[in-house]
Parts: sequence; structure tokens; C-alpha cells
Amino acid sequence: MSFVPMLESDVTSWSDESDVVVVGFGGAGACAAIAASDAGASVVIVEAASASGGSTALSSAEIYLGGGTKIQKAVGYDDSVEDVYGYLMDSNGPQADPKKVRAYAEGGAEHLDWLISLGVPFKPSELKERAMMVLTDDCLLYTGSEKAWPYSTRYKPAPRGHNLEVEGDNGGPLLTQILLQQVKQRGVSIHYETRALRLIVNCYGPQQRVVGLVVRQDMQEHYFRAKKGVVLCAGGFIMNEEMVREYCPQFLDNKTQIGNPNDTGSGIQMGLSVGGRAINMHEGFLSLPFYPPATLTFGIFVNGQGQRFVNEDAYHGRIGSFLVNQSYPVYLILNVADYGNYETESWLQAPVVATGETLDELVSELKLPAGQLEQTLKRFNQDVAEGTDTLFHKDASWLKAIEAPFVALDCTPGAGAFFPCFTLGGLDTTVEGAVCSVHEGVIPGLYAAGRTACGVPRRGDGYASGSSVGDATFSGRMAGCSIAIEEQV
Amino acid sequence: MSFVPMLESDVTSWSDESDVVVVGFGGAGACAAIAASDAGASVVIVEAASASGGSTALSSAEIYLGGGTKIQKAVGYDDSVEDVYGYLMDSNGPQADPKKVRAYAEGGAEHLDWLISLGVPFKPSELKERAMMVLTDDCLLYTGSEKAWPYSTRYKPAPRGHNLEVEGDNGGPLLTQILLQQVKQRGVSIHYETRALRLIVNCYGPQQRVVGLVVRQDMQEHYFRAKKGVVLCAGGFIMNEEMVREYCPQFLDNKTQIGNPNDTGSGIQMGLSVGGRAINMHEGFLSLPFYPPATLTFGIFVNGQGQRFVNEDAYHGRIGSFLVNQSYPVYLILNVADYGNYETESWLQAPVVATGETLDELVSELKLPAGQLEQTLKRFNQDVAEGTDTLFHKDASWLKAIEAPFVALDCTPGAGAFFPCFTLGGLDTTVEGAVCSVHEGVIPGLYAAGRTACGVPRRGDGYASGSSVGDATFSGRMAGCSIAIEEQV
Repeated sequence: MSFVPMLESDVTSWSDESDVVVVGFGGAGACAAIAASDAGASVVIVEAASASGGSTALSSAEIYLGGGTKIQKAVGYDDSVEDVYGYLMDSNGPQADPKKVRAYAEGGAEHLDWLISLGVPFKPSELKERAMMVLTDDCLLYTGSEKAWPYSTRYKPAPRGHNLEVEGDNGGPLLTQILLQQVKQRGVSIHYETRALRLIVNCYGPQQRVVGLVVRQDMQEHYFRAKKGVVLCAGGFIMNEEMVREYCPQFLDNKTQIGNPNDTGSGIQMGLSVGGRAINMHEGFLSLPFYPPATLTFGIFVNGQGQRFVNEDAYHGRIGSFLVNQSYPVYLILNVADYGNYETESWLQAPVVATGETLDELVSELKLPAGQLEQTLKRFNQDVAEGTDTLFHKDASWLKAIEAPFVALDCTPGAGAFFPCFTLGGLDTTVEGAVCSVHEGVIPGLYAAGRTACGVPRRGDGYASGSSVGDATFSGRMAGCSIAIEEQV
Repeated sequence: MSFVPMLESDVTSWSDESDVVVVGFGGAGACAAIAASDAGASVVIVEAASASGGSTALSSAEIYLGGGTKIQKAVGYDDSVEDVYGYLMDSNGPQADPKKVRAYAEGGAEHLDWLISLGVPFKPSELKERAMMVLTDDCLLYTGSEKAWPYSTRYKPAPRGHNLEVEGDNGGPLLTQILLQQVKQRGVSIHYETRALRLIVNCYGPQQRVVGLVVRQDMQEHYFRAKKGVVLCAGGFIMNEEMVREYCPQFLDNKTQIGNPNDTGSGIQMGLSVGGRAINMHEGFLSLPFYPPATLTFGIFVNGQGQRFVNEDAYHGRIGSFLVNQSYPVYLILNVADYGNYETESWLQAPVVATGETLDELVSELKLPAGQLEQTLKRFNQDVAEGTDTLFHKDASWLKAIEAPFVALDCTPGAGAFFPCFTLGGLDTTVEGAVCSVHEGVIPGLYAAGRTACGVPRRGDGYASGSSVGDATFSGRMAGCSIAIEEQV
């Protein structure tokens, strides 16, 4: 599919005209539309699907925000902007964007207030379990590795996942429904089943600016004029096998690409088509969601050397990202008591490859160098007895001797376990959301937000649940505010 | 610096006209010029420096080629195309380009013949030591991890580094001199101290093709017409701090960027400026060159957990790439006998942080979890006694018990050791060297080779010395041949 931009002079007639055209009606697009509208712009949304929500609707929508949000305060957490900033800079590694992280940390509490002002409900309560998602209507949850080494030693931890006040894993649908209502209330024109095909530019070359969008509706092309510009909120590219092979092929074999079917990178491609710059295209979220049950965290992961390689109390995305870089096989070794009945229960789709009333029995069924698992367990159990995981610093609350009867799960990619992944690379944007050019400066009339842009979350091993929906709503809102005050052309 | 392309219609007068303009006179550019000339094209080279050679001249030029080269056969190695292909596909990981690797494996022997036909001298001999470079005039050397696990178990190893017949580490200068002579013999017009500023295109937009180059000579701009097109051979981007920060920031702190000062990514930027696509921009060579002396390979590297993490007989680039992803500190633990006199000798610029007549004395000076190094050494020494490194599969020839007196080097990045790095990302090109567009297909009139393109070597942990000069000369030659048969415009 080619995204070569169309020339304005080739437009025979405009089907639609507005200040701002938003491409994609997920979390980012909705917030961009709301913010642009509130700043006085007329807004049109085009969405390929027949309903709004995008990947946000499919998510748990545990919005990752901190620095002293209303809910954090109500529950009694004294989170600081500096701890959020430090944690996000550190966990996103050398590619972290200090300006974006700074804005996100400083704006976190206010952004939650904004969501609340739109009617998004949060209950001042906390779920204290180690969970992937909140099945009650409680709000706060640790969704990253804040309490895990090494971060726990550097920044004061606080729960920053904000789950909506809704029973079951229904945060995404509820958020979508509320944002849809807010968009409708503002009189935004919404076009479903409308695919963005190409950007429209005033000219080719250095004077180029984006002035509209070619869309396809009912098998016909239409031209939507955007007087202030276009905001690309079309998601990431995990569903585009060709792009994944080109930029992040490690996410193909034995991984499950998650997102909505329209995460095909079309927004990124449109950005590239007018000279936008893509960055961090190799990175993504890659997880082994191995809890609940939380008791599996009492186990230890060992690699093909029979050695541990991570503190098992870290966020599941960190575990997954570490795991895929090990020598295989990788096993999770547990007490049967922490696993439950392995005849009837099956966790994380990983096969139970060994069980044992004795350690000898266990190891005889595993493909590991002789004696090494015994040594690893001996060391771990000694550390447990002394109360400190001296090698990987798993928190004391998760330390429990691993003793017979044992069970071992094969967590090697390809053996059965579920490794969900999605992309974290995209268009480079300013903190306001303007798309950066491969030349100097930005591309006039073009913004991007959510996973079409490269935002706050940048590394699989530093990811926290809720940081994509957090970043999408935050960056969408920033882009909407900013484009609304662009000069009209 | 902006690389916005110039319109042909804005050219007031052409200073020069040829079929092909080659940007950059390193290994890739020289071979592109020779090949294009031999295919009947008139060629102009522009080079920012005042002499030829680029980063090739600074290298050892151990040209990585296999599949049964003349020298491999003469020395008695029966290397096969399939073993080269398998090894390169595997060691370059999921991002390996099967078409490029196939062409390189199948064309290796013939490419060496071509170099020999140009007068590049190779002696039918082998250096059997584990060395980083060849200080004698011997030819063959293992320059990758072919003999190391896991590759040794999958593909028949053969030495593929081809060192030129010259004493000392002088392969790069000699290769440069020979290529220069060959270029001159062909009457190629060479412009030194001439900086490529911008590409010239016939128009902007979908009909665009590259038709020339703006250069700066003597503080004046000149316009060089290229009737068949331009070949970008301007090196990688390791010397451009802004680009490194944008695409591969892990190569900044405590690393040494190696290359020539003009490895500023200008070729990549010019490619991007006309809609070229860049891939693998996060990757690079990153090494801890810890041999010679080869005896250091008898030691073991341990990480902050006091655990080994790699087979120490792997190529130094593989060691470096693994090392930086460990928990720090990272130590190299050795017998003093293998280190030599630590009062007078200093290897790899890494400080000797501990010595010991006993193990207790050694560990007391290291920052490691109590008891773990003891356990690691016990396991290793047991394995040595039994003749098999059961954990990391270091080859038996490198197994030797580690016993008192001990010495430990601090190899943590930042502690003093030298971590050279350069980039392995660049413009995506076809196997012929045409630059791929962000739209479909290629950019008419634009080729790229060497480190301006993303070629055969794609991963730091799978790199082999000589694969950049090998790839540069091979891809330069391919691009030169291909552009020469382009239709003239």
C-alpha cells in the first residue's frame, strides 16, 4: 500500500472542511478531538472501524499517572513528580525522552483531574494484590516494577495504575464509551468505516504543509480539508507483518501480536510519506503474563544454564523481555503448593514439563546442565532463610523456600506460553505532538499521538501497564490543544 | 544541518557531468567507482577528506569472506556457501536480510578473486592464534564466533577473515592505496575536500529522481550532474552525537565511537531527505577487545550476580554486547599466570581491582554477593576437570582451572576498559544497492553501500571483524555495477 501524499491542486472538490482532522478514534484520537474542540477548533474524526475505541477499548485501561494524583492522595500515597520522572527516565533506558517524561510526570495529577472532569470514574481505593488487571472496581494498582529492584532502591514506589470504577476487566470499554459521549457532546463529526488513505499537501518539497486527508468511504475517495492540520492517532504497527519484519522481527516467531486489526502502521507510514522521522522502531512491549495467581511469583525462573536471571517480582513485561534473551529452555520452578493442582489447573498456557516429590525426580525431567538447578535452589533457599535475595533482590515479601513437591513449567517461547507483544516505536514528535521532519524542525500541519508517535513508554523491559493508555490520552490531548492554536491555512 | 534536496530547475550551471557520482571515497566508494567504471560508466567521486580511505583505511581490513575462497582452499579449508549463509543468518539474528546474506555467501569466493585481480595481495597462510588483528603478513584468521558455541554446533567453522599480505596492522592503508591506484587508472575524477551538501532532484514528489549533487569546494557550491545517479558511500553515523542520541543512545555513555570524523550520517540523511527508509538504526558493533593476549580467554567473566554470562572464547564483540546488558559490576577473573605481571602489564585499560593468594582474599576486594563467585569458580573448575563447560560451552581448548594466585579486572563500562562502537543501521537497500523508498519500490537514481546502507552485518552480538570492510567492498561493487546499467536521464 502506498501512502504517497496527494497534491491539494489535484483535489477536485472537498467533501468536508474543518480545522482539524483526527485519524483514528482510539484513546489518543478521542482525547485529541476533545482537546482541540475545547480549544475552539472544529474537528472531524475518521475511523477505519465501525466503532470507536481502537486498542484502548481492548485494554484494561489502567491509566498510568502519578506525582500525587487525587486518588493517590485520597488513598494515602505521597507520590512525587520527581519520583515519577526518575522512575520513567530510568525504566525507559537511554532512549527515554526527557522532555516528554518531564511533561508527563509534571502533568500526571492534572491529567487525571481532566479525565475525571470528563466523567471517567475512579474510586479512592487500592487493590493490594499482585495482579495484571483489576477485576473489582478498585482504582490504584502497582502496574510496573516500582516496588522491584533496582527501581525500589532509587525512587520511592507508589501505585500509579488507575483502574476505572467498574467491575470486571472493563476499563477499556468504559473509557471508550465516556470519551465517545464527550466527543459527541462537542459536536465533533465522526466518520466510521472511513479509511485514511493519504495525506493531502499544498505542494511537494520544502514548502510542503499538510492541508487535508484522502479517505475512502463506501468504496469512494473523498477529500477532507484540514485548515489547521491532521493529527495521526492510528495506533502502532504490530498488525503489519511486513513492517514488523522490517523493524522489529523479534516480535514475530512464537509471539502473539496484540492490538486491534487496524494497528497496521498506516499513521506512521503517512507520517513517513511526508518526511516524518520514525524512531525506536525496534522496540516493543513483550511480556510473559504469569500472574495471577500471584503465588507463582514465589517461584524462580531459570534459563538454559539453570541460573536465575531476574527478580521474579518485577512486572511481567520486564520478565518477558529478559526471558527472550536467555539461553533456552526457560523454566519456572515452583512449589506445587504455590502452583495448585497441576492435574486440573493450567497457568500461562505453559506446559508442566516436570514434577517431583524429590529434587532428583524434578531435575531428571528437565534439560539442564547436571547439578546446576540444585545449586541455584540451594543458594536461593539459603537466601530465603536469611531473608535477602542476594543475587537478584526479589523483595522479601516474595521470598519463600522452594521445596518438594516441585513443579516446573516450560516457559520457553514456542513451548506454549503466551507472549503478547506490541510496538513502542513511531513518529518522533515534539512534546506538543508536532511530527519531526527528517530535515530540521517539524512538518507543518501534522501532529501524531498515541502509538503512532514514539511517546513516553520506550522499552519492553521498562514498561508498565497503563502507560500506553496513559500516554495515548495525554499525548492525544497535548496534540489536540496544540494543533487547535495553529494558524489556519 | 539540513539536507533538503535541491531542484534541478534551480541549477544555474552544472560544474561537472558524469554518469555516476559516488559520495565518499572509503572502501565502499572506491569499489563502487571501480565497478561502475568497468561497466562503462563515467564516474566522479567526491570526498570530504583530503585523502581516500574513510573508515576502511583506519581498519585492519580483515575482509570477511568465505564459501571456499582461493585462500581458504590453498590453506586446506573446505568452507561451504551454506555454512557461510547459515552462520551469517544465525549470527545476525532475526533482522538478517536473507537476500543480502545469500548474495554475500554465494559471491564470497568470487569477490576475493576480484580483489586479487585488482592487486590486493593475500598470502596462502593462516594465523592460528586468537588475535584481534594480524600483525604478520599471514592471511586467514577466525574473526567471528564460528568456533564458539552455539555456532560451532550448527555450522562447520572456517576462518573467513582475510588479512592482506603486509606486516603490521596495515591492511586498511594498503587496501586503500591499491583501491586508489585502481580508481586513478580508470580515469575516475576524484574531488577531495569536497563536501556533499544535498542531492539534486528533477522534481519533488512521486516523480522524483536523483539527478545530481550539490557539493561545496573552496567555500563555493557546485552542481554535479549524475546522469545515471548517485551512490551514497559516506559511512555510518557514529560521529554524529545527535543522531546517535536519537537512534542508538546506548552507544554514548562510557563508549568510544570509532570511525573517521566524517562518519556523521550525512549519506543516511541525504537518503532520508528524498524519502529513503532507514532500518536497524538502533544496532551497532560494541566490543570489549580483551585479547591479545589470548591467555586472557582462559579467564571467566562474571556479572554483578557473580555468575558467568557468556562463553569467553566468543568474538570480543559478542562478549562486549553481552557484557553491557548485565548487572554491574562485571569482572574478568583470571589466574595471574594467564594475566602476566599485573604490576607492570595493563590489559584492555581495565583496572586490576583485586588480586589474591587465596580465594578469600580475592573476593574480599570485589563487590559481589557473598559466596557466589566461590560457587561459580567451583562449578567452572569441576567442569574444567571433566573437560566440558556444561554451562556456557566454552571450547575445551580454552578450559583451564582458575586457581590462586588470582587477579580480577574491572570490566564495567566506565571503569576504564575500552568499549569501541560503531553503527550498523542505515538506508534499506535492495541487494543491488538501490535505496528503498518509504513508499513502495526504490528511489530512482539513488544507491547506497557500506555503512550508509544497512548491509550484511546487523547485530553487535553477532558481528565478525572484517564484515564491514567485506560488506563495504561487496556492496559498493554491487551498487557500482547496478547503477552503471541504469538508464541515463
